[in-house]
Amino acid sequence: MLYIVGIGPGNEDFFTKEAESILNNVDLIVCYKGYEKFIKRFNKPIYTSGMRKEIDRTIYALNEAKDKDVALVSSGDATIYGMASLAYELRQKNNINVPIKVIGGLTSASICSAILGAPLNHDFCVISLSDLLTPLDVILNRVKCALEGDFVIAVYNPLSKSRKEPFLKTIDIIKNYADERKINYIIGIVKNAGRDSEEYKLTTINDLINNLDEHMSYIDMNTTLIVGNSNTKIVDNKMITPRGYLNKYLKD
Amino acid sequence: MLYIVGIGPGNEDFFTKEAESILNNVDLIVCYKGYEKFIKRFNKPIYTSGMRKEIDRTIYALNEAKDKDVALVSSGDATIYGMASLAYELRQKNNINVPIKVIGGLTSASICSAILGAPLNHDFCVISLSDLLTPLDVILNRVKCALEGDFVIAVYNPLSKSRKEPFLKTIDIIKNYADERKINYIIGIVKNAGRDSEEYKLTTINDLINNLDEHMSYIDMNTTLIVGNSNTKIVDNKMITPRGYLNKYLKD
Ligand SMILES: C[S@@+](CC[C@H](N)C(=O)[O-])C[C@H]1O[C@@H](n2cnc3c(N)ncnc32)[C@H](O)[C@@H]1O
Ligand SMILES: C[S@@+](CC[C@H](N)C(=O)[O-])C[C@H]1O[C@@H](n2cnc3c(N)ncnc32)[C@H](O)[C@@H]1O
Repeated sequence: MLYIVGIGPGNEDFFTKEAESILNNVDLIVCYKGYEKFIKRFNKPIYTSGMRKEIDRTIYALNEAKDKDVALVSSGDATIYGMASLAYELRQKNNINVPIKVIGGLTSASICSAILGAPLNHDFCVISLSDLLTPLDVILNRVKCALEGDFVIAVYNPLSKSRKEPFLKTIDIIKNYADERKINYIIGIVKNAGRDSEEYKLTTINDLINNLDEHMSYIDMNTTLIVGNSNTKIVDNKMITPRGYLNKYLKD
Repeated sequence: MLYIVGIGPGNEDFFTKEAESILNNVDLIVCYKGYEKFIKRFNKPIYTSGMRKEIDRTIYALNEAKDKDVALVSSGDATIYGMASLAYELRQKNNINVPIKVIGGLTSASICSAILGAPLNHDFCVISLSDLLTPLDVILNRVKCALEGDFVIAVYNPLSKSRKEPFLKTIDIIKNYADERKINYIIGIVKNAGRDSEEYKLTTINDLINNLDEHMSYIDMNTTLIVGNSNTKIVDNKMITPRGYLNKYLKD
């Protein structure tokens, strides 16, 4: 049996009981090497490999699962930019006859929303800026459509040392909408959410652009940005998107 | 202290360790009366009230939290159509001086994605079809923008006995895009995810429309729909949206 398990951001606090009990019961845990520290405490045999080794790792896990219980671990949720779809595809392609069960986990957007206040309290989009597997024009079109629909946007994979163009083009698009609509979109930036080194900043699109170098050196691969919509506001230093109860019921 | 706690869909398996430990330690739990069954096991004093009593419940929880530790419970995640933004707004409006901490939880989209396969394995939007607090034209514009951007869409609050218009208009919009693009969008429908009565169906926009009454009588307030994008496919009876690894690395 192959379990594909989302463990949340890493700290023990954010594991669900289901993830916890599966990892306590499998024979082998397979994961990205950066996550080994989060699953060592289960004292199980571990197989790790590096970035861009997702296919090898998944095939390894599928083959081992023929006669063992194996957990293939994703951070956050197991489907949201995780390994689950790849496992289903590779199982079919390679004709590997093992059952797969996906175990959802707390995704970065949820944790970051809780840390910032409640920016995801209304309709939102989740967009990855990584153009490794998705053409840049598809990504940028999604950013435009998200702004066109006045969605809150959770931005995953914002930038890396060698990949800055999608980020720069994205903030350009946001800035154009901001100017056109005269809205200085609020942006929350959360780094290492749910880990010991967690930190965050609240800013706006205008400030981000005016202090671009500073903000870009803060953002890394373990950062999620949440861009507010036209209703998002700061209340007591928290970023929140109202659901509308007070407008509706307390007009005073 | 007021904790706003997302508990996931309800079953114990989906509580995070953090939610579990907070609910074990507070003096009072406040929640919607339909959720009492999920938190009775903590053996704490409980205050419940019904639908549309969100404001009363939140003010009650804020006031009690002046001299107690109180947990205000949301299903799923505490910010995603949950109570967190309302609590921040009401705290400010009523000048109530209590600290608030939001505890994220497993949102319906994650659980439903895991049940269906991995439809949320690429960029997606979350849209609520409830027009109680949001004008219908804003909702329908978001549906259009989501399709325009070729996002996967997780649809919350799809319909209720007295609220069918947003659903009917939404599937009309999806059908128009489907015809124009010649894509028969795959749709997963999950009911009571993560509860004992969990069930799901895979269908398509054309089948949904051809068997509208049957599908509409299946869908209720505890149902989430996931509408695939142009790349979503069925692999071994699972609904998955590929991330693109196989296209990129295994062109053969
Ligand atoms: C390949 S995606 C994996 C997402 C993961 N499956 C999830 O559901 O959160 C990696 C991206 O997730 C986000 N991320 C992962 N861990 C994070 C953390 N601890 N804090 C903030 N963002 C994080 C970042 O945007 C990062 O670039
Ligand atoms: C007011 S919203 C609350 C969402 C919740 N805070 C979350 O993060 O999942 C209620 C909607 O969530 C979805 N939902 C809640 N529980 C569900 C379940 N067990 N199975 C499927 N969908 C569910 C349904 O679409 C429902 O109409």
